[in-house]
Amino acid sequence: MGQAPEQEHPKNAFGWAAKDTSGVLSPFHFSRRATGEKDVTFKVTHCGICHSDLHMIKNEWGNTIYPIVPGHEIVGVVTEVGSKVSKFKVGDKVGVGCMVGSCRSCDSCAIDLENYCPKVIMTYANKYHDGTITYGGYSDIMVADEHFVVRIPEGTPLDATAPLLCAGITVYSPLRFYGLDKPGMHVGVVGLGGLGHVAVKFAKAMGVKVTVISTSPSKKSEAIERLGADSFLVSRDQDEMQAAMGTMDGIIDTVSAVHPLMPLIGLLKSQGKLVLVGAPEKPLELPAFSLLMGEKIVGGSMIGGMKETQEMIDFAAKHNIRADIEVIPADYVNTALERLAKADVRYRFVIDVANTMKSTP
Amino acid sequence: MGQAPEQEHPKNAFGWAAKDTSGVLSPFHFSRRATGEKDVTFKVTHCGICHSDLHMIKNEWGNTIYPIVPGHEIVGVVTEVGSKVSKFKVGDKVGVGCMVGSCRSCDSCAIDLENYCPKVIMTYANKYHDGTITYGGYSDIMVADEHFVVRIPEGTPLDATAPLLCAGITVYSPLRFYGLDKPGMHVGVVGLGGLGHVAVKFAKAMGVKVTVISTSPSKKSEAIERLGADSFLVSRDQDEMQAAMGTMDGIIDTVSAVHPLMPLIGLLKSQGKLVLVGAPEKPLELPAFSLLMGEKIVGGSMIGGMKETQEMIDFAAKHNIRADIEVIPADYVNTALERLAKADVRYRFVIDVANTMKSTP
Repeated sequence: MGQAPEQEHPKNAFGWAAKDTSGVLSPFHFSRRATGEKDVTFKVTHCGICHSDLHMIKNEWGNTIYPIVPGHEIVGVVTEVGSKVSKFKVGDKVGVGCMVGSCRSCDSCAIDLENYCPKVIMTYANKYHDGTITYGGYSDIMVADEHFVVRIPEGTPLDATAPLLCAGITVYSPLRFYGLDKPGMHVGVVGLGGLGHVAVKFAKAMGVKVTVISTSPSKKSEAIERLGADSFLVSRDQDEMQAAMGTMDGIIDTVSAVHPLMPLIGLLKSQGKLVLVGAPEKPLELPAFSLLMGEKIVGGSMIGGMKETQEMIDFAAKHNIRADIEVIPADYVNTALERLAKADVRYRFVIDVANTMKSTP
Repeated sequence: MGQAPEQEHPKNAFGWAAKDTSGVLSPFHFSRRATGEKDVTFKVTHCGICHSDLHMIKNEWGNTIYPIVPGHEIVGVVTEVGSKVSKFKVGDKVGVGCMVGSCRSCDSCAIDLENYCPKVIMTYANKYHDGTITYGGYSDIMVADEHFVVRIPEGTPLDATAPLLCAGITVYSPLRFYGLDKPGMHVGVVGLGGLGHVAVKFAKAMGVKVTVISTSPSKKSEAIERLGADSFLVSRDQDEMQAAMGTMDGIIDTVSAVHPLMPLIGLLKSQGKLVLVGAPEKPLELPAFSLLMGEKIVGGSMIGGMKETQEMIDFAAKHNIRADIEVIPADYVNTALERLAKADVRYRFVIDVANTMKSTP
C-alpha cells in the first residue's frame, strides 16, 4: 500500500495495462501477493477479451483505478497452492472469472450468490481485502483465493473455455434462475455477439428451442447453420416479428445499447420473461401495460455465483460447449480492442498469454 | 344485434350508462339475455366503483362502446339458474368481477388464467359470444356463465366484499404468483388507494411485514393505525428511502401515473420483485443496471383467473378482509366519479343498487 505496483508484493508479474483514459495498453511490470494458505497461484495460459474491458480501460463507468490490467476470463495451470487449499493441486487446470473476493457472510454470499454481495471484489481495478489493487488476466501469473477459482475439466480446451468464465456464466445463470432451461421451451436470444453466441449453445444443450433475434439479416445463416439456432428473426422486420408474437417462454437480451423493449415483450407468451444481461447507460422505455397484459416480467442478471460458475463449466465440458474464438498474441491487444469496439470479431478474442506475453527487459 | 339495447334480449334491465365521452351517467333501460343452461341470473345488490370505470366512460383507453354501463365489482343474490348449472342455486350470494367470458381452450384458459386469454370478454363495453354488448354492474340484474361467477361465503358482508372482485384480486394474485406471500417476508405497497389499502390487508393476513410507500406523509397514521401496516415510507424523503434500501422482498406498485422506478428497485433485496398493477399511459423509465445488480425483476399483473378469484374471496372471508367503503345511492354516481377523479374517497365507493337503483317510468 502506497508502494509502486511492482514492489507491493513478493511475486514478480508482467502484463499489459492502460495507464490513463486513452485506453491504450502497454507492457507493465507489477507484483502479486505470496500464495496465502487458502490461495491458488497459477500460470495464466489464456485470457479472453470482454466488452467490459473496453469500458473499464477508458473509465467509461467512472470507477477505474489506473494502472489497470484488464481481463476476467482467465485460465491456466496451477503452480502453487496454500497449506489450507483443499480443492486444487499443482498441475490442475483452473480459471478465474469476474470476481476474486466477497464478504462471505451476507445474505447473498450465504446462498452462493457472491456476485450480488455488496462487498464483491472484482478481478481487476478493485481494492482487495488487503487494500491493494486487483489486476486481471492480461498477465502472466494469477493468485486467487480457491473459493473464487474453478476447475477446468481434463480434456477441455483452455482457450475456448476462457470466455465462458464471463460470457458463459452471464447467459447460463439467467437461463437457470429464470427457469428457461426446460426441454421444449422456446427461448429468444437478442444479439449475436460474445454473449449471444454462447447463449444459443447453452440453451440448445438444455433442450430448448432457440430463436436468434438480431438487427442484421446477414447473421441468419451463421445463427442457424453454425451455432445451431432453430430460427431467426430480424427485429426490424415487422411482419416477422408480428408472426412470432406470443410464442416465447423467455428471452435473453444481450444488447447493451438502448433499444425498444416493447417488441420483445410482445414476443413473450403470458408469464414470459425478458431477461436483460446487457446494461445500456441510459434508461430503457418500459410500457407497463405490456407487462400487465400477461403477467410478464423484465428481469436482470449479472454473471453468477461461484458454485454456479463451476456447474456451468462442467455442463459446458459435458456438452462440448465452447466459445468461438480468435486467438491473438499479446502485442495485438490494442488492435483487438479497436476491432471489438466495432464488433469485428466472431465472437471472442482470446490472448495466447502462455506463448506471447513475454516481459521484454 | 342491430336491435336497440332494450330489445335485444328478453329480460328487462335498468341501470346507469354513459352515452358519450362526456362520461356523464344517466338512467338507462336495456335488456339481459334469458338464463342459459350454464347461466346464473342474480339480483344485483351492490357494485363498487373502480378507477377503470372512470377511464372507460370517457373512452380514455380508446375502446369504449357506447352506451356503456360500467361496473365490474358486482355482488348480489341468485334468482335463477340454468339447467346445467352445478355450482349455484337460487338464494346464493354471488359476485362477478372484471370478466364474463373467455375462449376456455387456449394455453392461458387451460391453466385457469382466463384473465390472460387473448379472447377474454370484459364485463362491460365488450362483445359477448353472441355478438351483443356486455353491460356492467351499475344495473339491477346480471346474467353470467357460472364459470365467471364466484360464491360469496355466508356471513360475509356483500357491500364491503364487492370491491374485492377487482381491487382485491388485482393485488392478491401478484402476491401469490410472485411468491410474496411467505410469512416473514417484507413487502412494500406503493400508493394507498382502492388497490393499496386492500393490498396491505391481504399481505398482513399472509403473515408478511408490510411497508406502505406514499408521497403523502399525511397517510402515515392511516396506514399504520387503521390498516395495520408495519411501517411507512415517504417516497420523497430521500433519507427515509436510503435507510430502507435493500430491505424488501417485493413491492406491489398500485400507482397508475408515471413515476420513477429506480428508487423502488433500490428498496428491493437481491432477487426482489417490483410488481406493477397500475398502468401509466406513458412508458416508465427502466434503468437496466438497477435490475442486473441483484437479479431483480419488474413484473406486471392484471386481475386474476376465476379459480384464484374464488380462492381470494374465501381467503378474505376467513381473515375478515373487507374493503373500506363509502356506500352511495345510485343517483350520487356522477358526484362519486368526480370525487374519485380527485382521489377523494377512502377507499372505494360502492353503489347500494338494491335499495336505490329504481327505474323511474
